[in-house]
Amino acid sequence: MAPKQPLVVDCDTGIDDALALLYLLGDPEVDLRAVTTVFGNTDAGTAAANTLRVLEMLGRDDVPVAVGARTNRRGTFHLAPYVHGDDGLGNTGLPAPVGAASGEPAAELIVRLARENPGRLNLLAVGPLTNLAAALDLEPRLPELVGHVTVMGGAAHHPGNVTPVAEANIHNDPEAARIVLRAVWDVTLVPLDVTMTEVLTEEHQRSLRAGGSPAAEFAAAILDHYLGFYERRTFGVRQAACHDPLAAAIAVGDVEPLLAPVVDVDVDTGDGPGRGMTVADTRGQYLGFPAQDAARVRVVLRTAGTFADLLVERLCGTGGERSRHVA
Amino acid sequence: MAPKQPLVVDCDTGIDDALALLYLLGDPEVDLRAVTTVFGNTDAGTAAANTLRVLEMLGRDDVPVAVGARTNRRGTFHLAPYVHGDDGLGNTGLPAPVGAASGEPAAELIVRLARENPGRLNLLAVGPLTNLAAALDLEPRLPELVGHVTVMGGAAHHPGNVTPVAEANIHNDPEAARIVLRAVWDVTLVPLDVTMTEVLTEEHQRSLRAGGSPAAEFAAAILDHYLGFYERRTFGVRQAACHDPLAAAIAVGDVEPLLAPVVDVDVDTGDGPGRGMTVADTRGQYLGFPAQDAARVRVVLRTAGTFADLLVERLCGTGGERSRHVA
Repeated sequence: MAPKQPLVVDCDTGIDDALALLYLLGDPEVDLRAVTTVFGNTDAGTAAANTLRVLEMLGRDDVPVAVGARTNRRGTFHLAPYVHGDDGLGNTGLPAPVGAASGEPAAELIVRLARENPGRLNLLAVGPLTNLAAALDLEPRLPELVGHVTVMGGAAHHPGNVTPVAEANIHNDPEAARIVLRAVWDVTLVPLDVTMTEVLTEEHQRSLRAGGSPAAEFAAAILDHYLGFYERRTFGVRQAACHDPLAAAIAVGDVEPLLAPVVDVDVDTGDGPGRGMTVADTRGQYLGFPAQDAARVRVVLRTAGTFADLLVERLCGTGGERSRHVA
Repeated sequence: MAPKQPLVVDCDTGIDDALALLYLLGDPEVDLRAVTTVFGNTDAGTAAANTLRVLEMLGRDDVPVAVGARTNRRGTFHLAPYVHGDDGLGNTGLPAPVGAASGEPAAELIVRLARENPGRLNLLAVGPLTNLAAALDLEPRLPELVGHVTVMGGAAHHPGNVTPVAEANIHNDPEAARIVLRAVWDVTLVPLDVTMTEVLTEEHQRSLRAGGSPAAEFAAAILDHYLGFYERRTFGVRQAACHDPLAAAIAVGDVEPLLAPVVDVDVDTGDGPGRGMTVADTRGQYLGFPAQDAARVRVVLRTAGTFADLLVERLCGTGGERSRHVA
């Protein structure tokens, strides 16, 4: 879908965020202009350090990293070391990065790059949406300035992963998510409905280990913790969801969704059992999703289920950068 | 599952409520002790008149009918003539019933019958849960006195039918639904996930028309309006959901669900976009639904999809009363 225009990734790096970055950096056509970080899987500072580690591993110290929100719009935060390890990268104990984060706040960087590339800058957000909401606060014209927005988050028909109905990125800052998902720009939402069906297995991990590239070896190492979490808490076998890498692949047009209706999406910002839930109006499913007035969010409901193969190929440097993934 | 013990049906008759009553009355082993009515598809008084019409059609004026709540716990109500017709029975213009509703309020009747049949009375609720919540208010020991409760309502993974996430029975009185679904009794919840996949088609309507019994002819007549609504608003073809009859068949053990985990269920009683949603905790789906502390609601997530055939057979009097419906 979205062509490979200038891209900013907003993330909370995080095991699957790191995999998403490795995936994007494996394609020389992807024009990654900056990475901004937010609390979530880990704190925003650690997320920046982890992002720098990934960039430096691939010699990409040209990509600026900017730290963003350390809390959500209510001033609270929740981190997930049980999913991503105490260091956010599966307790792999990587050395500190050589470089440092830019002094520019994440939201300001997003606004500046949008103004410098009017109508062309794409955004990929794979953490809580606090930075994007802050950027919208700073520049109300941001929706006109930005090309396309891709968000990993939410759940349409699939259960949540933090509450029975809420997914972590949205639940971490429902107020911000509501602002971002109801702004007047085109958003592609990549929810658990598809990220939970695109899974990395032990077989994939073995392929990564044998892959020979630094990216593949690193991916295999950080996957250990992630596979363990998913085995214990979700799947009962050593396989892990491809949340952020799948959203990255959709953002740059490598994966074409098989079903992705444009529907009205709201976010529950109350304090009841639905807090942090994405309320996607999929009632038109039997009629082929008739157009809904003012709806702008394309909700990805089905993908082919074979993305993990592409991810592994890409990280091993065996052609993943050229292949196009169609059902 | 539930044996054919003394049964009270609480309903808002209603096209599919009428079909559910016809289904139950077609089995001489079903011990229907009373029908109580509530606002919903139509007003509680019309629902009682419609129930009497159905009972009298089959010569069952021995079954008492009691009128219950005319509004929800907030004192408001919403009716659905666009679904069920102005008369609640597809504008079929049936004559007024000969008999009249009992003077006993619905909630009091439920409590009385529960006390008279301690541990044996089963409840089937296919409308808003206002009467059952009122009965729990009247008699806090009701959960000990009642056998099993079956409720048609809610949506787990399926979209709602009133809002993107809320089903009509629950949305009509979320406060009552929350009381009923969190009381300390065993509930089987029959949500849209299954009632939308068990459909009556024009072919079924033709079979009913040719069936020869008064019940079948009447069912074919009231289906006209219902098929029209579902064609226009939901399916795009003339077929209709089997909401209440399916719940009835599950309540008396004729249909065995293929997947029905016992999980924690909450109801959103806030005023946000999730109001009236059932929040069923199905996060354990990949692990075969491990036991959840204190969970008592069995949520039916899958049935065989062939119930409409059984319903038609039963109404035509061609053996549906004897067949047992297993996948």
